[in-house]
Amino acid sequence: MSDSAFLDAAAELLGPRGLTRDPALMAPWLTDWRGRFSGSALAMASPASTEEVAELVKLCARHGVAIVPQGGNSGMSGGATPDTSGTALLLSLRRMNHIHDLDRATRQVVCEAGVVLQTLHEAAEAKGLRFPLTLGGKGSATIGGLIATNAGGTQVLRHGSMRAQVLGLEAVLADGSVVRALTPLKKDNRGFDLKQLLIGSEGTLGIVTAATLRLSPAVAARAVLWAGVPSLEAARALLLFCQDAAGDALEGFEVLPHAALEAVLAYLPSARAPLSSAHGWHVLIELVADRATAETLSARAEGLLGQALEHGLLEDATIAASEGQAEAFWTIRDSIAPAERARGPAVQHDISVAVDRMPAFVGEAVSAVEARWPGTQAVAFGHLGDGNVHFHVIAPAGVDGLSWQTGDGKAISGFVHEMVTQWQGSISAEHGIGQLKRDDLARLGDPVVLAMLRAVKDALDPAGLLNPGKLVPLAPASDNP
Amino acid sequence: MSDSAFLDAAAELLGPRGLTRDPALMAPWLTDWRGRFSGSALAMASPASTEEVAELVKLCARHGVAIVPQGGNSGMSGGATPDTSGTALLLSLRRMNHIHDLDRATRQVVCEAGVVLQTLHEAAEAKGLRFPLTLGGKGSATIGGLIATNAGGTQVLRHGSMRAQVLGLEAVLADGSVVRALTPLKKDNRGFDLKQLLIGSEGTLGIVTAATLRLSPAVAARAVLWAGVPSLEAARALLLFCQDAAGDALEGFEVLPHAALEAVLAYLPSARAPLSSAHGWHVLIELVADRATAETLSARAEGLLGQALEHGLLEDATIAASEGQAEAFWTIRDSIAPAERARGPAVQHDISVAVDRMPAFVGEAVSAVEARWPGTQAVAFGHLGDGNVHFHVIAPAGVDGLSWQTGDGKAISGFVHEMVTQWQGSISAEHGIGQLKRDDLARLGDPVVLAMLRAVKDALDPAGLLNPGKLVPLAPASDNP
Repeated sequence: MSDSAFLDAAAELLGPRGLTRDPALMAPWLTDWRGRFSGSALAMASPASTEEVAELVKLCARHGVAIVPQGGNSGMSGGATPDTSGTALLLSLRRMNHIHDLDRATRQVVCEAGVVLQTLHEAAEAKGLRFPLTLGGKGSATIGGLIATNAGGTQVLRHGSMRAQVLGLEAVLADGSVVRALTPLKKDNRGFDLKQLLIGSEGTLGIVTAATLRLSPAVAARAVLWAGVPSLEAARALLLFCQDAAGDALEGFEVLPHAALEAVLAYLPSARAPLSSAHGWHVLIELVADRATAETLSARAEGLLGQALEHGLLEDATIAASEGQAEAFWTIRDSIAPAERARGPAVQHDISVAVDRMPAFVGEAVSAVEARWPGTQAVAFGHLGDGNVHFHVIAPAGVDGLSWQTGDGKAISGFVHEMVTQWQGSISAEHGIGQLKRDDLARLGDPVVLAMLRAVKDALDPAGLLNPGKLVPLAPASDNP
Repeated sequence: MSDSAFLDAAAELLGPRGLTRDPALMAPWLTDWRGRFSGSALAMASPASTEEVAELVKLCARHGVAIVPQGGNSGMSGGATPDTSGTALLLSLRRMNHIHDLDRATRQVVCEAGVVLQTLHEAAEAKGLRFPLTLGGKGSATIGGLIATNAGGTQVLRHGSMRAQVLGLEAVLADGSVVRALTPLKKDNRGFDLKQLLIGSEGTLGIVTAATLRLSPAVAARAVLWAGVPSLEAARALLLFCQDAAGDALEGFEVLPHAALEAVLAYLPSARAPLSSAHGWHVLIELVADRATAETLSARAEGLLGQALEHGLLEDATIAASEGQAEAFWTIRDSIAPAERARGPAVQHDISVAVDRMPAFVGEAVSAVEARWPGTQAVAFGHLGDGNVHFHVIAPAGVDGLSWQTGDGKAISGFVHEMVTQWQGSISAEHGIGQLKRDDLARLGDPVVLAMLRAVKDALDPAGLLNPGKLVPLAPASDNP
């Protein structure tokens, strides 16, 4: 049997720690963390080195075994969950978790794919530096997974998404050859940017095994502000003002509507509203300073709020008086998703449109969804400065969660994605496509772009063994998106 | 005859302003500006719109006519010059030169491919903004060409190369289909980053017709410093100090050796040495501030120099006392290339290595070249902060320029590129590959990377009609780079 020949060869290559078929050991990794996708696998491989990954991929190529690469299994779109055929190999990168050459002078670090984000944060902090990307799953998300999905988070406004942090990359391609490009070259015009092509390709073009990442100076001071504004339009006016007046100091600008704040206050008994007054929308602003400008930050933050008030750009505002209060403000922001989930069944969308069109889009989308599906409540919150909100639609009270999600919920998602497409936005701002959105991408994507995606995929993985069924729509797209 | 059928159809499509075969009109565009490459063309097309470009490309695809896209014809590697066969169509984008939607609030602008860089600078300045990329050829270089070659310049340290300025892109692919992605989405994870794949592809994967670009706030204040240091190692130590102490204010950090300063002073009678003392290396530092931090810039610049002196990081330094003096400092930097050219025949290399290894590399490379080719003088200058120097080797006195360039000069270039490759650097940091470096890329490139380049090229331009002979090495690479 071909499977057993493959498994014997893989076991010999990887040793006892490197390969398992034990259902109990595999189970946690065969369902995505949101519990939306489950699959099965021939085995789970845990190679210890890039060389082992390369040899394993060659073995898979020879035997025609599909590979599903996996990091922390904290993705949002089912990109790391195999299908139910049981024919694919689950390839965990978690054993490759070494941090090398964390250098204070060059502000660079080399991480193997399996390094957990929080571990990197701590290692950078210990050297007076920071890695300027963070998100809710930081305790399990791995560097390899963050690169494969081009992860975002709350610091993209100033620092960019994962793609902007990667200075060098090492990856294993579909034929087992290794792209060794860890040397950080700030400028390199030797042809197409293959590094950026691999980043965000969700393991469909290659398997990231290591990366050289840029680090930032530790933050010397921060000021966390909370402002109340009447509308999302007003929040955007405030954003423009802050970008102009605070310049590079503006690190975060997150928005939430009144309803989201209410949900968090109900969900977290210890949470308190930052402002005593009521407002249609709330804005969390973070300003930071490095050593060179730390001294004046507090005065600048106060000046900023004063000027904004004077110009009528906000109704009320406060500055966190302590690091503890600053953390409390952020806890409110970070608790919106769990608080919404606690309210009952919902469908979530991670969407972007051009920043300047976001207020109009949210207004129209909320009205349209709530009118067409009476009893639902649509809530948008998140990264206004990036033109990216998480758009949640909560089911009417009393419905059965599962049947609502597969019925009306699914229809709502299709509707929201159609509307985003009409607004020339993206149906996946930061969570990727995976298996969750592949069909909507096939249905709504620009046929020219879909043809390019397929051509590049076929060119670099002609046998289709790298993370099959993910991201790349297989069937020709409709002519009428 | 197939040519005449094609030309008739093209003439009908483009009208009299859109197509010429007049040798006098075509001549200036058939030799690159450095005079190193000359070619001929079937005709020169100057379409007026993206639709015309798309129809023209379809026509070329039907007739099997190769296309050489061209912007300002100011490239450094012959990427916009057709071969001598006379079978290709020269496709000028210069007629498509409109600037749309320059918006102060969103800090964005839409440019057609043929907009000249300097024109964009002026348009941005008129709105209190700036486009933060500049280079010597700004009076002729076009946005399309800058995108196709991922141009660099002296502001990459802080703002990144052209790739970092592009928020949205429109391009015509090899089959005449149009990627319409001008909408600026700060976050978009719908699959591979095809925008970045097209940027820097030198017209071999698609023809850039328009782009949405990001703009920066106008600089509210700048401080231009000149420092003398004993060595390139010392310059690097000063760079690290400035990055730490000046943070985001550090806009430029250019280095030049004593010999380069001497060459400029001999070439430009009006130029004066910024420092009265003699130093092994010179550093030009620019600090800038936006509105928020402008007030303290001058004091911070003085503090920076004071601290650097105190720490023994420089031998002597001065701050430009006026905008005129600041310009004079930059004129010295910008005159190195012409001053070197005026000294006689030379070969130039645009190379990068990891920033921290640059001083050691330059030391070894200068010694090795001058020892092996007695009488030559090797001079490295430029963007130390980007790990990118221009490495010029000047011929021994009295040699015949042309025969030296094709003999020893060629051997020297091969040697320098081999050495850069051994140091894991790039043989093209910012000037691209074009036809100038294609053979060296084939010889020295990582075979895994070369195979990827060829696979992607074949996937997106299977007939090989887009800028043939440029960038992508055609023959299989040697197994022993």
